[in-house]
Amino acid sequence: MAGNTIGTLFRVTTFGESHGPALGAIVDGCPPGLSLSEEYIQEELEKRRPGKGKGETPRKEKDKVHLLSGVFEGLTTGTPIALIIYNEDPQSSAYEPLKEVFRPGHADFTYFMKYGIRDHRGGGRASGRETVARVAAGAVAKRILEEYNIEVHAYTINLGGISAHARDLNFIYQNRLFCPDPFAYEKMIEKIEKTSKEGDTLGGIVEILAKNVPAGLGEPVFDKLSAELAKAICSVGAVKGFEIGAGFKVAEMKGSLNNDPISSQGFLKNDAGGLLGGISSGQDLILKVAVKPIPSHRKTQRTINLLKEEIEIQIGGRHDISAIPRIVPVLSAMTRIVLADHLLRQLAVLAFRKRLPFPHFFDA
Amino acid sequence: MAGNTIGTLFRVTTFGESHGPALGAIVDGCPPGLSLSEEYIQEELEKRRPGKGKGETPRKEKDKVHLLSGVFEGLTTGTPIALIIYNEDPQSSAYEPLKEVFRPGHADFTYFMKYGIRDHRGGGRASGRETVARVAAGAVAKRILEEYNIEVHAYTINLGGISAHARDLNFIYQNRLFCPDPFAYEKMIEKIEKTSKEGDTLGGIVEILAKNVPAGLGEPVFDKLSAELAKAICSVGAVKGFEIGAGFKVAEMKGSLNNDPISSQGFLKNDAGGLLGGISSGQDLILKVAVKPIPSHRKTQRTINLLKEEIEIQIGGRHDISAIPRIVPVLSAMTRIVLADHLLRQLAVLAFRKRLPFPHFFDA
Amino acid sequence: MAGNTIGTLFRVTTFGESHGPALGAIVDGCPPGLSLSEEYIQEELEKRRPGKGKGETPRKEKDKVHLLSGVFEGLTTGTPIALIIYNEDPQSSAYEPLKEVFRPGHADFTYFMKYGIRDHRGGGRASGRETVARVAAGAVAKRILEEYNIEVHAYTINLGGISAHARDLNFIYQNRLFCPDPFAYEKMIEKIEKTSKEGDTLGGIVEILAKNVPAGLGEPVFDKLSAELAKAICSVGAVKGFEIGAGFKVAEMKGSLNNDPISSQGFLKNDAGGLLGGISSGQDLILKVAVKPIPSHRKTQRTINLLKEEIEIQIGGRHDISAIPRIVPVLSAMTRIVLADHLLRQLAVLAFRKRLPFPHFFDA
Amino acid sequence: MAGNTIGTLFRVTTFGESHGPALGAIVDGCPPGLSLSEEYIQEELEKRRPGKGKGETPRKEKDKVHLLSGVFEGLTTGTPIALIIYNEDPQSSAYEPLKEVFRPGHADFTYFMKYGIRDHRGGGRASGRETVARVAAGAVAKRILEEYNIEVHAYTINLGGISAHARDLNFIYQNRLFCPDPFAYEKMIEKIEKTSKEGDTLGGIVEILAKNVPAGLGEPVFDKLSAELAKAICSVGAVKGFEIGAGFKVAEMKGSLNNDPISSQGFLKNDAGGLLGGISSGQDLILKVAVKPIPSHRKTQRTINLLKEEIEIQIGGRHDISAIPRIVPVLSAMTRIVLADHLLRQLAVLAFRKRLPFPHFFDA
Repeated sequence: MAGNTIGTLFRVTTFGESHGPALGAIVDGCPPGLSLSEEYIQEELEKRRPGKGKGETPRKEKDKVHLLSGVFEGLTTGTPIALIIYNEDPQSSAYEPLKEVFRPGHADFTYFMKYGIRDHRGGGRASGRETVARVAAGAVAKRILEEYNIEVHAYTINLGGISAHARDLNFIYQNRLFCPDPFAYEKMIEKIEKTSKEGDTLGGIVEILAKNVPAGLGEPVFDKLSAELAKAICSVGAVKGFEIGAGFKVAEMKGSLNNDPISSQGFLKNDAGGLLGGISSGQDLILKVAVKPIPSHRKTQRTINLLKEEIEIQIGGRHDISAIPRIVPVLSAMTRIVLADHLLRQLAVLAFRKRLPFPHFFDA
Repeated sequence: MAGNTIGTLFRVTTFGESHGPALGAIVDGCPPGLSLSEEYIQEELEKRRPGKGKGETPRKEKDKVHLLSGVFEGLTTGTPIALIIYNEDPQSSAYEPLKEVFRPGHADFTYFMKYGIRDHRGGGRASGRETVARVAAGAVAKRILEEYNIEVHAYTINLGGISAHARDLNFIYQNRLFCPDPFAYEKMIEKIEKTSKEGDTLGGIVEILAKNVPAGLGEPVFDKLSAELAKAICSVGAVKGFEIGAGFKVAEMKGSLNNDPISSQGFLKNDAGGLLGGISSGQDLILKVAVKPIPSHRKTQRTINLLKEEIEIQIGGRHDISAIPRIVPVLSAMTRIVLADHLLRQLAVLAFRKRLPFPHFFDA
Repeated sequence: MAGNTIGTLFRVTTFGESHGPALGAIVDGCPPGLSLSEEYIQEELEKRRPGKGKGETPRKEKDKVHLLSGVFEGLTTGTPIALIIYNEDPQSSAYEPLKEVFRPGHADFTYFMKYGIRDHRGGGRASGRETVARVAAGAVAKRILEEYNIEVHAYTINLGGISAHARDLNFIYQNRLFCPDPFAYEKMIEKIEKTSKEGDTLGGIVEILAKNVPAGLGEPVFDKLSAELAKAICSVGAVKGFEIGAGFKVAEMKGSLNNDPISSQGFLKNDAGGLLGGISSGQDLILKVAVKPIPSHRKTQRTINLLKEEIEIQIGGRHDISAIPRIVPVLSAMTRIVLADHLLRQLAVLAFRKRLPFPHFFDA
Repeated sequence: MAGNTIGTLFRVTTFGESHGPALGAIVDGCPPGLSLSEEYIQEELEKRRPGKGKGETPRKEKDKVHLLSGVFEGLTTGTPIALIIYNEDPQSSAYEPLKEVFRPGHADFTYFMKYGIRDHRGGGRASGRETVARVAAGAVAKRILEEYNIEVHAYTINLGGISAHARDLNFIYQNRLFCPDPFAYEKMIEKIEKTSKEGDTLGGIVEILAKNVPAGLGEPVFDKLSAELAKAICSVGAVKGFEIGAGFKVAEMKGSLNNDPISSQGFLKNDAGGLLGGISSGQDLILKVAVKPIPSHRKTQRTINLLKEEIEIQIGGRHDISAIPRIVPVLSAMTRIVLADHLLRQLAVLAFRKRLPFPHFFDA
């Protein structure tokens, strides 16, 4: 019970179902005095719906965010920031035929076993739509990180087996797949079109790059930055794998190769992905995330219903071909939420180390 | 600050440095009435030092656990269980030459940047030795899981590039690498011997299999079982990658292939790794974990000291060739800790769903 | 940072300022399958504004609650329940003259020192209005407790020095001061009228009675039920004192008098207030809460402004004479929130003690 | 389950039973670089056993603390500090006759109902002896507070109905009752002697005074400093009441009297007890705590056994006449633990407000 909150000092709690009245987040622990507006948050939400081309659901979500608290005269006050996004276009009747069916690859069965009840409309709480609240909360984290020039970029390095080789950070924001490689982008689009015709769906890999992360973030031993990032990232529905730096390649690397040597100018390479002992080293953070194909494809599937009868289903309705690109800003958001939290946690350490004085109002 | 606790209802807090007086754990939230003894816990600790052959450090850790609270007349009482392991053979003088050096691949630099101070003796809190407390705590979790017949096995499926293909669960406990494949085992041993002669170290991949996990464990949306396992596993020092079920292979799988069809007898395959929407499905949990090579190898390394002077070092002393096999029981322990926590969390849901009555002592 | 969440398994997070767009709560950890409606919650909110007579602010808060998630077809689903109450009648211009003034007895100064910024409109987050979200969340807790027949009553036993001697639980809900004593009620009303004419305000004492609380709630040693109740109650703005059972009278009681003897039928008296070792004993819980007078009275007050200039102020606008009766349902709500949380925590213990089986869907 | 941890950034987890092998604490979140020694902690523990006169148990507890981690070369490292105190003189056989008896006023019955099992030896985890771990942990908090010149004093202002009127802070540490009033002290000693002869026990009131607490500590709305202090204080076994500043007297005070006016030099009085809106104002914190008489007196008591048979018991063995003075350093410790936690939490806010830079090691 009660698993919808993440963070220690910067703490995000979300709510909302795919086809309920609204989704949203309470962001608790944002420091005071930061400029923040609905427009700023909206800009992040727009990244979640990057185009009108193939590969994304045609559902018209306007996803207009409302900022209900914690900001006064354009500045954060230190109190909780409530963000709400109303669902404008539910059309849940499309899910009626699936009411008593466990869709393969979805959480229908597990929610039913957990709660003995489920909201069958579009996955309910288990829908990818839940992530809209994460992105909104992530925008607040982004504001915090900006003050320390910390940048987070996420981008698609593999879609349906097509790999990106280049890392053109500018190009990421110029294409609707957040792909950093113009050449791979074209191939990915082709793959999407072909797969769409087949009625099937695609998985992929997203890389996350965080720049200017100060050294020293992360708390031994369970709240390591690596561990907290792993949790935050793997809490996103479609994620099935997580790597730091060289990731699974370390299995075949010898220690003499894997270690990043250090010179007087800094580390000489970055197989560690910016994390040593789970704590940030000051190098770029580099993470990779495996995203499974959308389970709602149009092909015939074998499954059962609540009565345990074997049936075949074909899922209609509006669905994406891949969780990518929508998941990309979600992964950025989760990374930022964790970084903001640990930035604040480490600021407490640094402030004490410096015996940062408390302000006095009256003469002593 | 304060990152040494994990869990919600079953909560483990650990302490201790590699070369300090002792390491240990407080296990809070163990239900009452369970048989538990030092011997039982010791048995798990013994798995952390599986042999005397090549591949493990010759340091003679006796790792005798002392059970200091929470058990009365052989049964748990519901109160915190304190477990302590004294360090008997510190020999920290071996680390004197490294006192002002940042060892590549170790947490020396990040701890220094975080705290402005460090315990240079063998990595201090960042040492792999820290995990002895995790294994002790995991033994308590194991006792809880036994009551529900939940079994956790971890085993080496890759060491230095040598892959295990078989999954002989019996053989796991008959070889000192926890390898499930007799043929691969021989090759791994050869690889270790060869690498040892080179003065180098090896990484690998560990697979975790949990059987009889009931459906419904894990809490949406941040405390998903997948997310909590990711955190627990990635909080172990040498881990650089984490996969659930098909893992990174999902990038190349189509939805029609990735989904596990369901029949009236259950799921027809298990690419999901036992987790749908982050909640256990009742299938076996299958996780894979990438373990980096031990950074302390005997080859010459480029690094710097506290004065930012570039130096070359060669690390002597007693060191393992690989974090495997020692990390294997640690990964089992972390998996068990998470499962025990979520078992109890879900029992609260189930108990309420059944309106489980409270015992009365007096007549109403 | 981040102090707006309370609870472990039943977890409430609130947001909202007195004069912002909205206030609300996310209630995480409500078990599935409970009937819940906006009407049910609204009924609790109505208790927060019990009449139109003297003693309450004339501000027309409609306090209409909107239930945005976690309920499907009238039943809770186990997912977070978001509750929102829009502020309809802010009139914050009344606070303009106080913009740069620290009102005595209010949190103006402390918020300013904490955050370096403040929302001066009606106290912002420190306003008593914040409690509307607590009452909404408390209604969810009430639904949980109803399933175990646990009742919580709160009532005014002292207002401005006038004590209630009777404990007529029916009368509580028939008068707008939640007073359990018809005779004292009349005197309290007189006191309010007299004090209103003087332009002053009154404090009081509220007693909380919880019936049918099962034995065994509360967790040693820090999360004792006594301790968690103390925190929840003392987190309400105007509270300055908290007592359990005999409370401060224990200072003058000898052990032979203070102990509650036990017979085969149960305890023979209840000076312990239903808590032994901080854990519920199965007797009625009895708590007393001291409520300070509303600091916004109409008399002239000495204070300073942001420039540290000494000034005299007179606070106009619409204000209650006493935090009582509005605080009474808030104190019930906080008590219920804590009880619901500990009910669920103890259900996990009991379920494990009974080895409550997990449901199976497929044949084993 | 799992209630033995307190704090967010400065986090204390304790373990241990009255007659088990040891008690102790893990203190997680102590900043690095602070001098700390066993001697320093021992000094606090000595205050828990202030003399050999009447009023204290003759049990010879040496209570020698062992510091097992988190300190290297005399300085804290930032990692968890484990503190352990072995029980040297258990003599649990004295409790054999009470094995199946529920002692009135003790937690015997509630622990039995909670866990279905209990450690009958001296109260087990519910024993006052549990507090030795709190005092040890509180010593670490004291070291943190010293760096900001924050002082906490606790002293006996009422024992068995005898009130202290003076507040001589020097005298507190010169008498074994921590009484601030030499005249009252004599009367209290007389009262103890008389009560001891009667075979009875006494309650009392302890006042806590914290000086130099900076303004701005405490987090709205649930983690107010007032609320967290209430929890920490009321988590101590014998506590039945808690007051801030004027406490229950506010019920009879008008707002015009209760408010503390503010001049350009500061607040003109302190009925608020140093807390406005639950956040520290920079004035002295003033709290009062009601302590119930020790339930183990020598008079005959009515009770029942596990078979629900009514019996009369007389409790022998070694017992204090009052929880005072032993509880006094415990209450100081709990206050310090909360203050240290909130000091660090507020330092994170202040550090961010100042955009405190992170240290760089390499040139940018």
